[in-house]
Amino acid sequence: MKHMPGSLFEGYVAFKYGRFRTERARYHELAKKGQKPDVMIIGCCDSRAAPEMIFDAVPGELFVVRNVANLVPPYAPDGEYHSTSAALEYAVQVLRVGHIVVLGHARCGGIAAALQEDSEPLSPGDFIGKWMSLTEAAKQDLVNHAPVAPESRTETMEKLSILRSLENLRSFPCISIIEERGRTALHGAYFDIETGVLSWYDRASGWFRPVEVGLQPPV
Amino acid sequence: MKHMPGSLFEGYVAFKYGRFRTERARYHELAKKGQKPDVMIIGCCDSRAAPEMIFDAVPGELFVVRNVANLVPPYAPDGEYHSTSAALEYAVQVLRVGHIVVLGHARCGGIAAALQEDSEPLSPGDFIGKWMSLTEAAKQDLVNHAPVAPESRTETMEKLSILRSLENLRSFPCISIIEERGRTALHGAYFDIETGVLSWYDRASGWFRPVEVGLQPPV
Amino acid sequence: MKHMPGSLFEGYVAFKYGRFRTERARYHELAKKGQKPDVMIIGCCDSRAAPEMIFDAVPGELFVVRNVANLVPPYAPDGEYHSTSAALEYAVQVLRVGHIVVLGHARCGGIAAALQEDSEPLSPGDFIGKWMSLTEAAKQDLVNHAPVAPESRTETMEKLSILRSLENLRSFPCISIIEERGRTALHGAYFDIETGVLSWYDRASGWFRPVEVGLQPPV
Amino acid sequence: MKHMPGSLFEGYVAFKYGRFRTERARYHELAKKGQKPDVMIIGCCDSRAAPEMIFDAVPGELFVVRNVANLVPPYAPDGEYHSTSAALEYAVQVLRVGHIVVLGHARCGGIAAALQEDSEPLSPGDFIGKWMSLTEAAKQDLVNHAPVAPESRTETMEKLSILRSLENLRSFPCISIIEERGRTALHGAYFDIETGVLSWYDRASGWFRPVEVGLQPPV
Repeated sequence: MKHMPGSLFEGYVAFKYGRFRTERARYHELAKKGQKPDVMIIGCCDSRAAPEMIFDAVPGELFVVRNVANLVPPYAPDGEYHSTSAALEYAVQVLRVGHIVVLGHARCGGIAAALQEDSEPLSPGDFIGKWMSLTEAAKQDLVNHAPVAPESRTETMEKLSILRSLENLRSFPCISIIEERGRTALHGAYFDIETGVLSWYDRASGWFRPVEVGLQPPV
Repeated sequence: MKHMPGSLFEGYVAFKYGRFRTERARYHELAKKGQKPDVMIIGCCDSRAAPEMIFDAVPGELFVVRNVANLVPPYAPDGEYHSTSAALEYAVQVLRVGHIVVLGHARCGGIAAALQEDSEPLSPGDFIGKWMSLTEAAKQDLVNHAPVAPESRTETMEKLSILRSLENLRSFPCISIIEERGRTALHGAYFDIETGVLSWYDRASGWFRPVEVGLQPPV
Repeated sequence: MKHMPGSLFEGYVAFKYGRFRTERARYHELAKKGQKPDVMIIGCCDSRAAPEMIFDAVPGELFVVRNVANLVPPYAPDGEYHSTSAALEYAVQVLRVGHIVVLGHARCGGIAAALQEDSEPLSPGDFIGKWMSLTEAAKQDLVNHAPVAPESRTETMEKLSILRSLENLRSFPCISIIEERGRTALHGAYFDIETGVLSWYDRASGWFRPVEVGLQPPV
Repeated sequence: MKHMPGSLFEGYVAFKYGRFRTERARYHELAKKGQKPDVMIIGCCDSRAAPEMIFDAVPGELFVVRNVANLVPPYAPDGEYHSTSAALEYAVQVLRVGHIVVLGHARCGGIAAALQEDSEPLSPGDFIGKWMSLTEAAKQDLVNHAPVAPESRTETMEKLSILRSLENLRSFPCISIIEERGRTALHGAYFDIETGVLSWYDRASGWFRPVEVGLQPPV
């Protein structure tokens, strides 16, 4: 038997009678006119780091690719299947998004596994092993990086990996061009699951800075 | 300058002061103990089809891969980068999810493009062209399918593509095995953006059936 | 000093950047055109029984009076201040609502206090004592009621009180008239805070029946 | 027939399968331990000004009284039914709230009606007429106020009425005492339905100031 899992069923009911009901007009419009998101996010599959939650998104707002460890492979027009590259091409050439964000997060299982010295392939196909080999450059950056406390190694690696993914984004000729022309901006972001703090890559300082929500009550 | 887009900033504030604030305990727990989602969803990048919205998910609930047209490539242990396959391996071997759902949707741009006879590559890399060639089998299924009204072709193709992706899931030896052992169930689902109706693949009838939310007030 | 409480401040930020941002069009419309809610709810002040939460309401949907123990006093045109009666008059004559719901709930502090034999006034004004004396008729109904288990006395009283409030609604000539004409329907509802179950008064059986959400997944 | 209105039914389903499902632990706790809200809000019945929405409240957070035009009558221990006074007594003596907020809003129908020179009673009972006569002092304040543009008269009146309600709060001996002792703080707030701006009464300046949400993205 293949029953629809109860949790998904209940969640769908909540959506159908909740959000869909109150945003019916928006969904209708999006169905008729198509999607025109201005932001593309490359995020991680991690269940705690959904871009729509972190950015309180509405339908039609974010074009989202999610893979293990939010990696962007370097440009490789070799005729193979490249899911993330295909999504990038679609976002840039068809949707013509104004922003591409590589969104990493703390406690990433993929990154943690990549940092382990002698890990066994998870299966004969060793897909994760091959996929995570995309982080070799970032691992080297970690070695060359100013020393960090042991408990900060993984976080530093997660952030270095975001930067390498941004570099890989620029290895796509069309992306490089539209960035120079100011048509599309590239961003790196890092979400701390425990504190809820979001950090944004700041070119001036060359590292990530927490998004400051500087609120003071007036009285 | 690379300012954080205003819409993302505002959305993050809403999240930080809204959901994160009211679910702080859940995030804390998820940070300490790690993620243990029981459901993996392979969805589309489309901004109107976010799995977390459709299933009203909470953090920690869904492990989500998203690519163009929610495709699963066939098992190919050829040493290349395979983002979707890597995510599957992680979900099956590490997270040991109980359910894998291929979630398609109406008005899919990728599927529409695949159905067009003579489309030009979007860029020299033609990543979309190569990626969407994964739908060749489904295109053939459409040809062989009982005739459908012209306005239903795309929807039929979207659904046939989901079925082919389910087949490709089974081409992974480890997935095939755990499905037989009853450890993991595979599901196909289809979301209609305009009506909000979710359909679920029903083995008995061999096609998709709307999830019936059979509510009647008691008085 | 009178600082805005931090919790209210944070909640307001979440609202301003969350719901208000995504529903800006609706608020704008409601500001320009005014409110036209079709439902009036008489609810309790209890922090666990907010009608907007229980009915997942959107702005403009519910006209809500809340007082201790969701009581409706009998019609008394005596020139005194009558807040609940004033709200009723406004709802019926100006808004012309189609429905009036008396919404009670489990574990009501006011009802529990009313059931205590020898309770001291809370203050010289004894406002609660006087207000809760509106439940005398319901207390008598409880005495005359078929015996109930001790642990069910409060729940039975809460429900009998709702019925008495409905009767008091009908003591208003204009309400009695519009009910007979079928212009406005009167309803009694009871929310169980622990189970989330909502019960609705059913004339046929003369008592409350749980709102059955009869969902079964199709596969 | 008295069918449960479809909109309420759908909203309840969304709540039961949405918020109640994800916050089940909180509801369970609130059921077992009772409510202990630290904030009491006196708000208007207006469907566009629900305190729970404006402050993104969770169950258990706000003890809410709502009447037409969010008025607080002066202390009058005369043995009559006084719903708002009863709620105040309960909040102060039993719940021992730390904050009482009088929350007014723009475009208040009650205030607009009170400003009309020759309005007919809405019904023989003229409950609204009598209730709104509580705004006589605020009307006089408006006359004595520095001249305001015609289009600002209603807003000024709404705010003056909040201040008079705060004064009436202080006419309750127990409230006056706990305010002096610093045990409970009194606040006035004003919500602009069109702009979503919330203003807070600021003693220093003697008038309302917008709650400044001073956000700047860091990059």
